[in-house]
Amino acid sequence: MATPSTSSELADPSGSGVTSSPSGSLGIWFVGARGSLATTATIGLGALAARLTDETGCVSAHPDLDARGLAAYADIVVGGHDVGTVPLAKQAERLVAGGVVPGILVQQLGDELAATEARLRLGTHQDDTSDQRAEVERLAGDIREFAAAVDRVVVVDVSSTEAPHDAGPDAATWADLEAAWAAGRAPLASSSVYACAALLAGAPFVAFTPSPGMDVPALRELADERGVPYAGSDGKTGETLVKSALAPMFATRSLAVRSWTSINLLGGGDGSTLSDPAARSSKTETKRSGLESMLGHAVPGPMHIDYVEDLGDWKTAWDHVRFDGFLGTRMTMQFTWEGCDSALAAPLVLDLARLAGRAQAAGETGPLAALGFFFKQPVGSTEHRLSQQWEDLLAWSHTCADRVSA
Amino acid sequence: MATPSTSSELADPSGSGVTSSPSGSLGIWFVGARGSLATTATIGLGALAARLTDETGCVSAHPDLDARGLAAYADIVVGGHDVGTVPLAKQAERLVAGGVVPGILVQQLGDELAATEARLRLGTHQDDTSDQRAEVERLAGDIREFAAAVDRVVVVDVSSTEAPHDAGPDAATWADLEAAWAAGRAPLASSSVYACAALLAGAPFVAFTPSPGMDVPALRELADERGVPYAGSDGKTGETLVKSALAPMFATRSLAVRSWTSINLLGGGDGSTLSDPAARSSKTETKRSGLESMLGHAVPGPMHIDYVEDLGDWKTAWDHVRFDGFLGTRMTMQFTWEGCDSALAAPLVLDLARLAGRAQAAGETGPLAALGFFFKQPVGSTEHRLSQQWEDLLAWSHTCADRVSA
Amino acid sequence: MATPSTSSELADPSGSGVTSSPSGSLGIWFVGARGSLATTATIGLGALAARLTDETGCVSAHPDLDARGLAAYADIVVGGHDVGTVPLAKQAERLVAGGVVPGILVQQLGDELAATEARLRLGTHQDDTSDQRAEVERLAGDIREFAAAVDRVVVVDVSSTEAPHDAGPDAATWADLEAAWAAGRAPLASSSVYACAALLAGAPFVAFTPSPGMDVPALRELADERGVPYAGSDGKTGETLVKSALAPMFATRSLAVRSWTSINLLGGGDGSTLSDPAARSSKTETKRSGLESMLGHAVPGPMHIDYVEDLGDWKTAWDHVRFDGFLGTRMTMQFTWEGCDSALAAPLVLDLARLAGRAQAAGETGPLAALGFFFKQPVGSTEHRLSQQWEDLLAWSHTCADRVSA
Amino acid sequence: MATPSTSSELADPSGSGVTSSPSGSLGIWFVGARGSLATTATIGLGALAARLTDETGCVSAHPDLDARGLAAYADIVVGGHDVGTVPLAKQAERLVAGGVVPGILVQQLGDELAATEARLRLGTHQDDTSDQRAEVERLAGDIREFAAAVDRVVVVDVSSTEAPHDAGPDAATWADLEAAWAAGRAPLASSSVYACAALLAGAPFVAFTPSPGMDVPALRELADERGVPYAGSDGKTGETLVKSALAPMFATRSLAVRSWTSINLLGGGDGSTLSDPAARSSKTETKRSGLESMLGHAVPGPMHIDYVEDLGDWKTAWDHVRFDGFLGTRMTMQFTWEGCDSALAAPLVLDLARLAGRAQAAGETGPLAALGFFFKQPVGSTEHRLSQQWEDLLAWSHTCADRVSA
Ligand SMILES: NC(=O)c1ccc[n+]([C@@H]2O[C@H](COP(=O)([O-])OP(=O)(O)OC[C@H]3O[C@@H](n4cnc5c(N)ncnc54)[C@H](O)[C@@H]3O)[C@@H](O)[C@H]2O)c1
Ligand SMILES: NC(=O)c1ccc[n+]([C@@H]2O[C@H](COP(=O)([O-])OP(=O)(O)OC[C@H]3O[C@@H](n4cnc5c(N)ncnc54)[C@H](O)[C@@H]3O)[C@@H](O)[C@H]2O)c1
Ligand SMILES: NC(=O)c1ccc[n+]([C@@H]2O[C@H](COP(=O)([O-])OP(=O)(O)OC[C@H]3O[C@@H](n4cnc5c(N)ncnc54)[C@H](O)[C@@H]3O)[C@@H](O)[C@H]2O)c1
Ligand SMILES: NC(=O)c1ccc[n+]([C@@H]2O[C@H](COP(=O)([O-])OP(=O)(O)OC[C@H]3O[C@@H](n4cnc5c(N)ncnc54)[C@H](O)[C@@H]3O)[C@@H](O)[C@H]2O)c1
Ligand code: NA
Ligand code: NA
Repeated sequence: MATPSTSSELADPSGSGVTSSPSGSLGIWFVGARGSLATTATIGLGALAARLTDETGCVSAHPDLDARGLAAYADIVVGGHDVGTVPLAKQAERLVAGGVVPGILVQQLGDELAATEARLRLGTHQDDTSDQRAEVERLAGDIREFAAAVDRVVVVDVSSTEAPHDAGPDAATWADLEAAWAAGRAPLASSSVYACAALLAGAPFVAFTPSPGMDVPALRELADERGVPYAGSDGKTGETLVKSALAPMFATRSLAVRSWTSINLLGGGDGSTLSDPAARSSKTETKRSGLESMLGHAVPGPMHIDYVEDLGDWKTAWDHVRFDGFLGTRMTMQFTWEGCDSALAAPLVLDLARLAGRAQAAGETGPLAALGFFFKQPVGSTEHRLSQQWEDLLAWSHTCADRVSA
Repeated sequence: MATPSTSSELADPSGSGVTSSPSGSLGIWFVGARGSLATTATIGLGALAARLTDETGCVSAHPDLDARGLAAYADIVVGGHDVGTVPLAKQAERLVAGGVVPGILVQQLGDELAATEARLRLGTHQDDTSDQRAEVERLAGDIREFAAAVDRVVVVDVSSTEAPHDAGPDAATWADLEAAWAAGRAPLASSSVYACAALLAGAPFVAFTPSPGMDVPALRELADERGVPYAGSDGKTGETLVKSALAPMFATRSLAVRSWTSINLLGGGDGSTLSDPAARSSKTETKRSGLESMLGHAVPGPMHIDYVEDLGDWKTAWDHVRFDGFLGTRMTMQFTWEGCDSALAAPLVLDLARLAGRAQAAGETGPLAALGFFFKQPVGSTEHRLSQQWEDLLAWSHTCADRVSA
Repeated sequence: MATPSTSSELADPSGSGVTSSPSGSLGIWFVGARGSLATTATIGLGALAARLTDETGCVSAHPDLDARGLAAYADIVVGGHDVGTVPLAKQAERLVAGGVVPGILVQQLGDELAATEARLRLGTHQDDTSDQRAEVERLAGDIREFAAAVDRVVVVDVSSTEAPHDAGPDAATWADLEAAWAAGRAPLASSSVYACAALLAGAPFVAFTPSPGMDVPALRELADERGVPYAGSDGKTGETLVKSALAPMFATRSLAVRSWTSINLLGGGDGSTLSDPAARSSKTETKRSGLESMLGHAVPGPMHIDYVEDLGDWKTAWDHVRFDGFLGTRMTMQFTWEGCDSALAAPLVLDLARLAGRAQAAGETGPLAALGFFFKQPVGSTEHRLSQQWEDLLAWSHTCADRVSA
Repeated sequence: MATPSTSSELADPSGSGVTSSPSGSLGIWFVGARGSLATTATIGLGALAARLTDETGCVSAHPDLDARGLAAYADIVVGGHDVGTVPLAKQAERLVAGGVVPGILVQQLGDELAATEARLRLGTHQDDTSDQRAEVERLAGDIREFAAAVDRVVVVDVSSTEAPHDAGPDAATWADLEAAWAAGRAPLASSSVYACAALLAGAPFVAFTPSPGMDVPALRELADERGVPYAGSDGKTGETLVKSALAPMFATRSLAVRSWTSINLLGGGDGSTLSDPAARSSKTETKRSGLESMLGHAVPGPMHIDYVEDLGDWKTAWDHVRFDGFLGTRMTMQFTWEGCDSALAAPLVLDLARLAGRAQAAGETGPLAALGFFFKQPVGSTEHRLSQQWEDLLAWSHTCADRVSA
């Protein structure tokens, strides 16, 4: 984690060790910076920078992925928005109690957490009466201020999942959006307000949630126009990940999947948010789409996400797959997945920030389809098969690495 | 299933519809032709030829696989060796009772089964006192006789798994082997005797079991010299198949697999054979090797194969995977697989015969590495990842199809 | 199964072997007589009577249960109501296709099925405009007609689960109910109309479904007044059964169950009915209540019942139990249950009819609390622990057996 | 935990608060006092005495169990033998690292652990050349010395499982045993040497392991003669516990269990010991016997205990039960159990010491059959059904409580 942590220091980049790194320094701006995932990522980054932990769970550590030009952990600084105000240190304690993060790490990284705390700013929660244009400007300002101290910033949305939201004709084009704002309307969901702010600040936007975010024509137009890359959406960490590894097995073996049932139990803040049916519907939709694409046909079967408070940051998923084999033989596969969502997602979030940062440096713009490996609902791609996504990611990692090394 | 079924008929190829097919007729010669797997494949082939069933479970039916030049089901004839003498019809009844094969199919395919029955010949069981050279000749003769009525023959070993067997210096080269035979020694295991007979008859040899088979230098030399292709070994149908889909997921996500436990429960003839520890050791060895190759390191964990008579032809496998994520977080994945081995394997055996037959027509020789998709221990390849094997198979399917269509 | 099948035959009891049995003949009148469960029970009864199957799954076959005075299978006749009209023979075929019932049995029992078919009468489906009093009379007439040919009749409700229904003040007392009927109102749900008809015909009523049935003060009053026993409700056959065996384990070991999640997947007619949320709510309520009673406190956790058409008459349930041990240690138990509901329930339905018939002969009236062993929501009892219910059943079996043998 | 901790203090009982308790003070003498289980029990006892934890997992805390006259936690002192010398504090650290025991407890209970450390004595490891009589005397002396400071001592064997051992004719009677010793022979296994020492010191002996222990005629004779009660063997904590809750369900429902497969994965010291096939055979034998007794017939199926180092003190068990229902329908139940063995066993060990101590006070002698609830292989009883064992335990708890309260 880069050392500069106060704005005065940040105003003097020459005073930091950051610019000495060949890849330059990277700022990660979390939307939802006080959540379980952001806090785990922040602690994990500190631990990686200080070599207190290894890169288990970090995709960019895979020997086949071309890592040339990715920001070094020690050159990464975290800041962000949140609408909550619980101090990062308190969130860290909660994660320690929940067994997500070793207590010793939080003790050793106290200074880093305090420094990050100082870089957090109040977020926004949109409703019909919001002055959306003003909020976009304010948030973009926060990002620009943060950006002054680093070579490059990537905004990563890890805030609570929002309900599906149709921004409608008011956001059909950038002009429409400006007109709507001028007329006092507020067509965008919060996640899209953040996405807009990121673009205006010139920062790549990574949607780790299934929230509307960049899924708005006006914002895609803006991204194109400004040449800013973006990626998403909805991090693929649990049973959807397993699905994307398993479904191709059934498909390539010509086995006929008749039903696929999924139930996800989770506690924690995310589980609590998803106990709201509206927010949950964002999730189950992204989960279902991939399966059908991989199997080539609709597959019936219930898909549940349930809040079980007692599970905390741990998720248990059970999947039941009924398939037919040769001569109509009936067979079944079941799996249980018991994972810690934050621990699965945190290193991916770091990977994504590093990869998106390098992509921008390499001149990539628009949807980063090659990052589909990380997402349940990949923008710019219809590929859901994990191994094919992996091959695409590897190939692209070479392209980007070559370009930034040239 | 091709109609010619008696040798007199076979002597008159012009009388059959077989030669009219553009891809020509194919003979499948099963070693272990009365076993569950061979019987299921025989019935299934009949059902496919008569359009009584669909191609569920047949890899060659996948739209991405280039099927040009593969023998049509109606142009395939089955024969084979077995040391048992239980009539095929009795075996079929047993499979019906076990729920593997629909009773109605066996009723409708009675004539085809009787015709196949007439093409079965007595196999061999080797021991130290066998006159191995004579047996090889006898078996090769049976295959040649069968081959007279079809355009091409592929020998597929689906007999009981043998114990590991080291043929030693006596089989280091073809000359050594001939010398050993001349000296009255019998260095080869039964499966290798069959492999040798196949090669001498010019037929590709497919090892669907983990038995020694072609894993003998003298026989590989013979295959090279005669230009006969071969493939194997040990069909990948159950939890090893799932492993080859799942293990790459852990690897590409940099998750640290700490232990992987497997238990396989199976009844049936195969289960009964594998309740012998010596035979079982062949199986568990091939199962373990792939996992380590996919994960890049040795993975501890017991691996059991247990005979549970009551399960019949159905196999239940439970796998338990302990892995660590970021910051040392402990996680677990478990799966249960409930499949019918014969129903899973039978269409693969048909696929393999068709693909190996076309490969020979396309001029392929030696180990068919691109068939690794089908095997636990692929000859000629170190690739165990299912999806990579799939890509290799697809690419090769185009090469072969192009060549035979040219 | 008793042979008399036409009313003329039945008018001549001396001509049948039925009355020669010391325990006398028993008529089972199924409400929902064409459903999967009733059809399986009917076939199974025939098979037991003809000694074509053994008593696996029959509780009354347990050596510790006192069976003196229970009707012999050969002395039991089946009749019933249904609103559907699909012939029993068709339903039997469907069950054969679904693997519930062996085809051979249906072939052998064709005559018995035809005889039962002749004893089925059209049921009723209540709505606000029904002339409920007339319907009760009509149904009671059907039961009385059936009863003429046997020594005793038990009515067993195995029809589709109804939504919860509050009969309200109109059914507070028998007098209220008669007044409501006189005023042209129809306060009872269909299941209660059947229950009422049974009582008026003097037949014990067994509620194998969670439908309202006897859960109406006016009907309980009627039962008391007429001295007719009744039992219910909602047969305990799947994961609730397992729960009632497992939950006491946690309780007696002072382990603290923190959450208990259940998901039930089922196809078939029952699954299709339960895909209606209203009907389902009857089910999940009865499922939840027992758990809390056994553990002594409310236990959070979702409880799903999902329709998965492909599963047919087979049900798969997954339960996930999170519990704490000494010093707050977190532990987990999971189970998967793969059962055939009709095959589990059919022998219980026969047991219940035989036990309720004997109970009536023994002079028992009102709620048969000792039959709680069979039910999710036992009437007349708050005991849900399976083994305690078993002890109660055994003790009561001796009491009844003694009385009828005296 | 009672405060006296040095021998000088113990020599002055009037100086301790111990004798003021109505039930008197209790000493628990652990054989294997430095093992995971004993250490967890020691820490847990301290935590209970200091009210730092609640009685979750303690059977004696169940409201239905009559607890009058059981030693209060604050009146219990721990001592013991071990052949290892790793300090208790180190073992405690290991348990904290393994997630078995909260670190905060070990910090708070440092003094108590040190006091217990001072009461540990070197154990014995028997072989053919041991002077067994001398060892028995030495160990009995240690126990007597410990006993001087408390009102009553119970010896609990929680040391490593030994291989099955037949003491033979040399231990047929106490006289034979003395003769064998006099002749310089050493017929007893270590666990039996400890049992003998306990009896000679007048202390009840509780065998929490499946080791030979009291399973020696000469020792049973000695116990009878001295009027010392004993209990065992092999604590029932994991999948055997679940079996004893589930098997009666199948039995009372007349379901036909065709196979029952078990696999237990465990790390830790116990797992490491059990990776020795000889020690393991003690375990699997006790596990199998109960199942057959509950189901009334032998049940095939493999039973594995595997050492998986990575699992530490956590055990994962998978059980697969194949059963038939009515009309031969095939069904399956599976369960997975993920528990912490030490956390499950530690409170039971405290329960057993308290119950055995009170039993001695109540005048009970010989095998304490009513403690079968706690054991895989209950001495003095053939009852394996958990709920029946529970009823027996409750009834006996009243008898003992009445007697000591009289
Ligand atoms: N962890 C995973 O494996 C995973 C996978 C895919 C997606 N996700 C998504 O990542 C997100 C974060 O998960 P989490 O477990 O950290 O959840 P969390 O509930 O712990 O954290 C969410 C944070 O977002 C903040 N927030 C809410 N509304 C906001 C707003 N309008 N502006 C700014 N901040 C806002 C909250 O105050 C909170 O601090 C969720 O949307 C989740 O669905 C997580
Ligand atoms: N079914 C699968 O999914 C699968 C997967 C991988 C490998 N396999 C292997 O395929 C083989 C066949 O399986 P199965 O279920 O049909 O077993 P099976 O026991 O039903 O049949 C084996 C047949 O081989 C015959 N045989 C034994 N020794 C012989 C010999 N020396 N010569 C000729 N025939 C001989 C037997 O008489 C029997 O008819 C086994 O080795 C099995 O391990 C099967
Ligand atoms: N099978 C089990 O293990 C089990 C356990 C507990 C409860 N149950 C209950 O038993 C009932 C029967 O289950 P099933 O699998 O046979 O269902 P099913 O759908 O196959 O059969 C229900 C039958 O009831 C008939 N029916 C519907 N409404 C009726 C009415 N008003 N009057 C007369 N008949 C009517 C239908 O026509 C159908 O024939 C269900 O309510 C189910 O919830 C079953
Ligand atoms: N934990 C459970 O749920 C459970 C259930 C049933 C039985 N058990 C049994 O309890 C015992 C203890 O389990 P654990 O997990 O604590 O094992 P552990 O390996 O951690 O501890 C065993 C202890 O016994 C000591 N020991 C070995 N030989 C000895 C000897 N001859 N004399 C004195 N001490 C000796 C060892 O040094 C060690 O300290 C095992 O036999 C286990 O099988 C445990
Ligand atoms: Na030919
Ligand atoms: Na009558």
